[in-house]
Amino acid sequence: MKIGIIGLGRMGGNIARRLMRGGHEVVVWDRNEEAVTTLAGEGAIAASSPADMKGKLDTPAIYWIMLPAGAPTEDTIRDLSAQDCVAGDIIIDGGNTFWKDDVRRAKALSEKGVHYVDVGTSGGVWGLERGYCMMIGGDKETVDLLDPIFDTLAPGIGSVARTPDRNGENEDARAEKGYIHAGRAGAGHFVKMVHNGIEYGLMQAYAEGFDILWGRNVDHLPEEERFDFNLTDIAEVWRRGSVISSWLLDLTAAALAKDQKLAQFSGSVADSGEGQWTIQAAMEQATPASVLTTALYARYRSRIDDMFGDKLLSAMRYGFGGHVEIPQ
Amino acid sequence: MKIGIIGLGRMGGNIARRLMRGGHEVVVWDRNEEAVTTLAGEGAIAASSPADMKGKLDTPAIYWIMLPAGAPTEDTIRDLSAQDCVAGDIIIDGGNTFWKDDVRRAKALSEKGVHYVDVGTSGGVWGLERGYCMMIGGDKETVDLLDPIFDTLAPGIGSVARTPDRNGENEDARAEKGYIHAGRAGAGHFVKMVHNGIEYGLMQAYAEGFDILWGRNVDHLPEEERFDFNLTDIAEVWRRGSVISSWLLDLTAAALAKDQKLAQFSGSVADSGEGQWTIQAAMEQATPASVLTTALYARYRSRIDDMFGDKLLSAMRYGFGGHVEIPQ
Amino acid sequence: MKIGIIGLGRMGGNIARRLMRGGHEVVVWDRNEEAVTTLAGEGAIAASSPADMKGKLDTPAIYWIMLPAGAPTEDTIRDLSAQDCVAGDIIIDGGNTFWKDDVRRAKALSEKGVHYVDVGTSGGVWGLERGYCMMIGGDKETVDLLDPIFDTLAPGIGSVARTPDRNGENEDARAEKGYIHAGRAGAGHFVKMVHNGIEYGLMQAYAEGFDILWGRNVDHLPEEERFDFNLTDIAEVWRRGSVISSWLLDLTAAALAKDQKLAQFSGSVADSGEGQWTIQAAMEQATPASVLTTALYARYRSRIDDMFGDKLLSAMRYGFGGHVEIPQ
Amino acid sequence: MKIGIIGLGRMGGNIARRLMRGGHEVVVWDRNEEAVTTLAGEGAIAASSPADMKGKLDTPAIYWIMLPAGAPTEDTIRDLSAQDCVAGDIIIDGGNTFWKDDVRRAKALSEKGVHYVDVGTSGGVWGLERGYCMMIGGDKETVDLLDPIFDTLAPGIGSVARTPDRNGENEDARAEKGYIHAGRAGAGHFVKMVHNGIEYGLMQAYAEGFDILWGRNVDHLPEEERFDFNLTDIAEVWRRGSVISSWLLDLTAAALAKDQKLAQFSGSVADSGEGQWTIQAAMEQATPASVLTTALYARYRSRIDDMFGDKLLSAMRYGFGGHVEIPQ
Repeated sequence: MKIGIIGLGRMGGNIARRLMRGGHEVVVWDRNEEAVTTLAGEGAIAASSPADMKGKLDTPAIYWIMLPAGAPTEDTIRDLSAQDCVAGDIIIDGGNTFWKDDVRRAKALSEKGVHYVDVGTSGGVWGLERGYCMMIGGDKETVDLLDPIFDTLAPGIGSVARTPDRNGENEDARAEKGYIHAGRAGAGHFVKMVHNGIEYGLMQAYAEGFDILWGRNVDHLPEEERFDFNLTDIAEVWRRGSVISSWLLDLTAAALAKDQKLAQFSGSVADSGEGQWTIQAAMEQATPASVLTTALYARYRSRIDDMFGDKLLSAMRYGFGGHVEIPQ
Repeated sequence: MKIGIIGLGRMGGNIARRLMRGGHEVVVWDRNEEAVTTLAGEGAIAASSPADMKGKLDTPAIYWIMLPAGAPTEDTIRDLSAQDCVAGDIIIDGGNTFWKDDVRRAKALSEKGVHYVDVGTSGGVWGLERGYCMMIGGDKETVDLLDPIFDTLAPGIGSVARTPDRNGENEDARAEKGYIHAGRAGAGHFVKMVHNGIEYGLMQAYAEGFDILWGRNVDHLPEEERFDFNLTDIAEVWRRGSVISSWLLDLTAAALAKDQKLAQFSGSVADSGEGQWTIQAAMEQATPASVLTTALYARYRSRIDDMFGDKLLSAMRYGFGGHVEIPQ
Repeated sequence: MKIGIIGLGRMGGNIARRLMRGGHEVVVWDRNEEAVTTLAGEGAIAASSPADMKGKLDTPAIYWIMLPAGAPTEDTIRDLSAQDCVAGDIIIDGGNTFWKDDVRRAKALSEKGVHYVDVGTSGGVWGLERGYCMMIGGDKETVDLLDPIFDTLAPGIGSVARTPDRNGENEDARAEKGYIHAGRAGAGHFVKMVHNGIEYGLMQAYAEGFDILWGRNVDHLPEEERFDFNLTDIAEVWRRGSVISSWLLDLTAAALAKDQKLAQFSGSVADSGEGQWTIQAAMEQATPASVLTTALYARYRSRIDDMFGDKLLSAMRYGFGGHVEIPQ
Repeated sequence: MKIGIIGLGRMGGNIARRLMRGGHEVVVWDRNEEAVTTLAGEGAIAASSPADMKGKLDTPAIYWIMLPAGAPTEDTIRDLSAQDCVAGDIIIDGGNTFWKDDVRRAKALSEKGVHYVDVGTSGGVWGLERGYCMMIGGDKETVDLLDPIFDTLAPGIGSVARTPDRNGENEDARAEKGYIHAGRAGAGHFVKMVHNGIEYGLMQAYAEGFDILWGRNVDHLPEEERFDFNLTDIAEVWRRGSVISSWLLDLTAAALAKDQKLAQFSGSVADSGEGQWTIQAAMEQATPASVLTTALYARYRSRIDDMFGDKLLSAMRYGFGGHVEIPQ
C-alpha cells in the first residue's frame, strides 16, 4: 500500500523502514528536513509539506502520524483535517495518545467522513528488528483495509510458541501475528495504556525483589542472617526455567551483567503518562488497581529528595513522644 | 498500695510520681543512682538493688518494670525470677514489649507461681499530667488486685464526653477511666501494638494530605490550578468542627504554628518495633492491613537516599526504550 | 446580612436555621415547596422562584447554593447567571463541587462582574449544633464582605483548646473560629477535598486495626496466640488519653457500644467523589498518596463480590503449579 | 552419582526420573510403598526404610529430601541425623523450607560433620521436561561435589538466548545452565523465597490490568467510554513482541483461550508461605516492598467475604454523615 508518514523520529523512521522492507510505498515528511533526506536515501518518497504529501498519496489518502502525544499530534491532525483531508481519507495516530483524545477526534473527524485509527505500539527501539506489537482502535472496515500495513509491521508468528487451546472461536487470528483490532476508536490506546500500567507493576515487582536481595547484607542483621548475593547470577538463573522469566527479566540480567551496581543510574525514575491514565481509568470504573498505583507512586517518590509529609511525621513524633529527629 | 518501680527514665519516673501523688508507696531502683536520688527527694523509698527492693516491699511483692524492651527488660525479669521472686509475687512489664515475649514469660513464671502482667501504655510524655491510657494483659485475679494502681495512673473519666449507648452490658467499666483488662498475658501489649499500628496509619494519612497541599504550587501545573496554601491555618481550621479532628491533628497544628516549613526536621523518620509487629500479626491471621503497612513502608523509604530498585527501573527503561536516566 | 439560600435539604435547611439564629435575614427557595414552607414557618422569607428571590434580596444579591454537586448546582448557577445576576452579585457554592468546576465558573462569572465563592464544609449533620468548619475560596474582597455570614455559621472558638505557638504572624485569625479563606476560587473545595482524602485514610487505619483485633481468634492460630477481644472497650479506652483519640474514634466507640458486631452494616462501602479527586490531584502533582489511595481502593474492593483478577491468579497458579482452586 | 531420594510425590518422583535419565543411580524411599514400587519399575533402587537406604548408598551418603516443608521435612532430617548419618554425609532439602530453618539446621548438623544443602526449585510440574531452575545454599565444597546432580536436573543452556555482556568476570558459569550457588546454607531458599515474592507481584500486576479491561464495559460509564474487550486476544497479542511478555503471560493466554470468563475458578486465591516470608525479610531489613505486600494482601482479601473493617467504615459514615449503608 501507499502510506504517508509524518514524524520521522526513531519510531517513525523505523516504521517507515519496516514498511519499505515489506514492499509498501512510503511518503515521508518531518519538520526536520535531514530526517526526510535520510529516509529518501533509503527509498522513501520525500514530501516537502503535508500538502505536498497529499499530492503524492493515493485516494483515499492514508496518513500515519508518529509524533509526541499532546500538542504536536493534536495540531497536526487538526491541520490535516482542515487543509488536506477529504471524505474517505484515513488518519492513523501511532503515538502515545490519551485514549479519550482518540474518542473525541474520531467523533469530530467522522463528521467530515475522515476515518480515524489509533494504534498503541509496544516494542520500542526493538521494533525494526522484532516487529511491533500493535493494539488498534477504529471502525472495522478501515482497520481491515489497513491490514497489509499492520501485517508488515507486526512481528508475525515467528518463533513464539503457540498458545494451547486457541481454536479460532471468538478469536482474532491477527493476535498470533502480533496485532489486534481491539475495538472502536480509543480502544487501541486504551489497551496499550493498560499494557503500560501492567509494565509498571511488573517492573516494580522485580525492583523490590532485587532491593531485598541487595539489602540483605546490612549491619543491623544478625551475622548469620546476612547474605552477600550476586545479583547478576540470580537474574541469569531466573531466566532459565523459572516461573518469573520474562523479557523484562532478560533486560534486567543484561543490565546487571554490565554493572551489578547499576552505578550509572541516578535512581530518579520518570513516568510517561500512561501509568497515571491507567489509574484514572481504574478509578472511573471503581476497579482497585493497587499494585499498578503503588508502582507509579514508587516512581514519584524516587524523584523527591525530602518529603514534607515525612517531616510532619517527625514533628508529630516529637509532639507526642519527645522523639527527636532533628539533624544536629 | 506498695509497689517497686525498676527503671526511672522519663516514663518510669513519671509513673512513680503519679503513683505517689495518688497516695501509693513507691520503692524505686535504677542502675543510674542519680535517678534514684531524685525520686527519693520527691518522696519515694530508695532501693540500692533489686534484692534491697524486695526487702522493702510487702508480700506479695509487686514490681513494675519500666525499661527498654528487649534485653534490658528480659534480663531484669529473668534475674528477679531467679533471685528475688516467690510464689504470689507480681511482675508488671510496662514497656513496649513484643506480645509473644509476654506469652512466653507468663508461662515460664506461672510455673513458679509468679504472676505476670503486661501493660501497654499510650500517652507518653503527657502522661504525668493527663494520665496514662493503659491496655492490660494477665490473669483476672491479679489484674483486679492491682486495680488501685491502674486507677491512679489512668486519666479517669475527666472531661472526655461519654460515649452514647454504653450501658454497662458486656462492658468493662474501667474503659471509661482509661484502662482495660484486655485479656490474658500478652493481650495488653497486643492491643497497644495495634494501637501503634493504627497510629502509623493515621499519621501517614495526615502526612499525605499535607504533602498534597504543600506541593500544589509546582511549576508544571497550569497557573490557574496552583494554590499557595497556608498549612498552619488549614491545620487549625480542621481542628474546629471537622470530621478529621484528633489529637494528632492538634499536634500537627502546633508544629506548623511554630514553623510552617518544619525546617528543623530532616524528613528521615524512625519506627519503633510496633508497626512491624502489627504487620506480622496481620499476616499470621491473613488480615490485609494495607494502610498500616503502607504507612510503615513510607517510613522505611524516608530513611533511604537512593533505592537500588529505582536504579533497576531506570536500567530496564533504558533497555527497552532507550530512555536515559543517567546523571550527566 | 441578607442572603438567599437555594436548596433546602438537610444541609441547606440547617444552614438557613443557623444563619437566622445568628440574626441574618434569609430568603429561601427550593423546588420542593414543602421545604420552603417549613423554613418560612421558622422565620425565613419564602421565595417562589429564583427571580422572586432576586427581588427580595439586597444589592448586591448574595446567593448560597446548597445542592448536589454536578448538574443540579451547575444548572442553577448557569440560570442565575443568565437570568438573575448583575455585576457585583455574589454566588456561593456550598456543596461538594469538584474544584476545577469552581475555577472554570469563577472565570466565566467574572466576565460578567459576578463574584464566585466556593465553600467546602465539614461537619455534616452535626453542623446546626456544633457549627460548620468551612474552607473558602474566592477573591479577598468578596470573602471579607461575607465575613458575618461565615462567622455565624462557624463553630467559633468554643471549648477547643488553643494551639500553642499561634502568634498571629502569617496567620488567619478566622482559623481559630473554624473557617479560613484558603485562596482564590477553587481553593475552598480543594482543601475540603484533601480533608476528605485524609478522612478516608484515617477511617481505613482504624478499620484495619479493628480488623486485626476482630480476627485474632481464628482457628489456624496456636491456641495460646489467640485472644477474644472486647472491641467496644478497646475503642472506649483509646478515647481516653491515647495518641489515636479523635472524633472518628468517638464515632467508632459509639457504634461499637450499640452493637459490637456491627451486624446491621453490609460491609459494602460507598465513596463520594472527593477521595478519587484527591488522588487525581496528587497524580497531577506527582505526589505519592499511597495511604489515601489504598483507603479508596479498599472501598472499591468492598463493593465487589468476585474479582476477575483473582480468578486469573488462580488460573495462573493452576498453569504453573497444578494448584487447584476450583470449586467442587 | 548415587543419591537417595526421600519423598516421591510429584516433585520427588520427577526429580528421581530426571536424575535416572541423566545416568545417576537413585535409591528411593517414601512412606507410600506404591510410589516406591512405581519408581523401582522405572529403574530406581527401592529402599524399605531410611536405614535400608543408608545401606544402599555410597560413602558419604547423599540424601535429597523432597517433602512438604515444616514437620514432615523437619522430622525426617532429625531422624536421619540421629539414626543414619555419619560425618561427611550430605542432606539436601529440596522443598519449600523457611530459610531460617536452613540456617538453624546447617548449624546443628555441622556439629556432627554432616553437610546441609538447601535447594530452592522453580519450575514445578514442568520440571521433568524443561529442567529445574535451582538456587542452592551450602558450603562451597559440598555444593561443588554435588555438581553432577544439579547439572542433570537443571534446564541447561538450551534455547534461551544468552545475555549480552556476560563475560565470566565475577559470574557463576552455572547460572546460564539454570542453577547457582547462592551462598551459605539458607541462601538457596532465601533467593527462591524472593523469587516467589516477585512472582506474587508479577501475577497481581497482570490480574489488575485484566481487571481493568474486564470492567470497562460497566453501566455507569458514558456509553462512548465503554469497550467490550476480547481478553483472549489481548493476552495473545501481548505475547508477541510487547514489553510485558513473560511465561506468566503465556499461562494467562492459555487460560483465557480455554475460557475467557475463567468461570471454573472461584476467585479465592491461596498463598504458600513464601510471599509472607518475603515481607518478613523485607521488614527485617527495613526495605519497603510495597508491591509485593500489596499482592499478598490481595490474596488475603480474596478469601474474605465480608470485612469487619468495612462494616466499621459504614458505621463511621453513618455516624458523621447519616449515610445509610444498611441492607434493607
